[in-house]
Amino acid sequence: MKILGFDSSAKAASVALTDNGKLLCQYWQASGLTHSRTLLAMAEDMLKNLDMKVNDVDAVAVSIGPGSFTGIRIGVAAVKGLSWAADKPACGVSTLEAMAYHLADRENVVICPVMDARRGQVYNAKFEACEEGLKRLCDDRAISAEELINEAKNDEKIYFLVGDGADLCYNKFKEAGVPVKIAPEHLRLQSAWGVCKAAETGELVAPDTLTPNYLRLSQAERERLEKMNNK
Amino acid sequence: MKILGFDSSAKAASVALTDNGKLLCQYWQASGLTHSRTLLAMAEDMLKNLDMKVNDVDAVAVSIGPGSFTGIRIGVAAVKGLSWAADKPACGVSTLEAMAYHLADRENVVICPVMDARRGQVYNAKFEACEEGLKRLCDDRAISAEELINEAKNDEKIYFLVGDGADLCYNKFKEAGVPVKIAPEHLRLQSAWGVCKAAETGELVAPDTLTPNYLRLSQAERERLEKMNNK
Repeated sequence: MKILGFDSSAKAASVALTDNGKLLCQYWQASGLTHSRTLLAMAEDMLKNLDMKVNDVDAVAVSIGPGSFTGIRIGVAAVKGLSWAADKPACGVSTLEAMAYHLADRENVVICPVMDARRGQVYNAKFEACEEGLKRLCDDRAISAEELINEAKNDEKIYFLVGDGADLCYNKFKEAGVPVKIAPEHLRLQSAWGVCKAAETGELVAPDTLTPNYLRLSQAERERLEKMNNK
Repeated sequence: MKILGFDSSAKAASVALTDNGKLLCQYWQASGLTHSRTLLAMAEDMLKNLDMKVNDVDAVAVSIGPGSFTGIRIGVAAVKGLSWAADKPACGVSTLEAMAYHLADRENVVICPVMDARRGQVYNAKFEACEEGLKRLCDDRAISAEELINEAKNDEKIYFLVGDGADLCYNKFKEAGVPVKIAPEHLRLQSAWGVCKAAETGELVAPDTLTPNYLRLSQAERERLEKMNNK
């Protein structure tokens, strides 16, 4: 099965194509340019350079969150449009699970993706490597670094951090004297390859049913609710 | 320093851009299409998508071998032309060193890139992780898997294989009962990111002095010599 994967859940943007789990191509960029400008252009260039069309793929996958609200919206909207037009099934995957695949060969550790969620929290989930790939240990959630450190203290395993919140958490673990590891730089940020990997065991759905998973209310929604509550 | 890196030393082809060691973009492909068709098109697309021109980079780096004779020739010729036309210094790096950067965070192991060199041999060099990145333990060479296994038996460290010869060697290590590790699939093949990393500590030269390092004679040269010797 050929899966065309997209990620634009944070600063990096990427597109990838896998064939039965094997990476054929990945185009990854963390230049600071807006995803609405780069993401589909990257996909178009990539397919052209592979001598392929969207019709040649079997499914289109995308990270549906958690992550940047704007980034997720761009990715999900692009994939909805593209898979609907090409009449292909879509697959929405957890940004955190996709990133955990970067470390799926690390044994005897808790694979611990962390994305900076602002407001003192990180988006996080926990996994461990298993024969089939990854075993999920908890749901996606927003949690403080301190709570995560307390969990690590109670476990007997090393937490292995990956993601744009890894630096921040790594320093807090170190300050707290809790053993920890951090993904090397070339594996630290999201990748569309991870999205394709997660999609291999994900559910294929009709494009119009793809829904972002923000985990939290957006700033605008939060402020509106606060205003309504204060009235 | 912005480095534009190229790799086409084996089946995969890739281009990448780093800025002071940080990856800004990588475009990687292992589709089986010929490098002469894809490599420069990927570079062109990548720079366009980054809103950059070749003039915006400070140096152009390329893996000069060992590797596929045709692949190396395509990469070196493309980079010679491009850096000469743009008046940029060039940097030729060892394919094996570039690949070793994929594993530069793995401690207490011998990082061991192996490329299938046919005729019962692999191209190989050995490295270990150090604070500055990588410490080279031996020169690039062509060696049989059996010789490599004998060296591993004499060392007290685990050999950590990476490269398109890793599968082959991994099985031979296992058969011989010698402990060994293998890079996960997403890190196993060459990358232009590795080329950029190796170029950071490499020598910048005038483009016309770039020379491939094939390590062995080509088949045509070998057969010509044999014919001459048989006369």
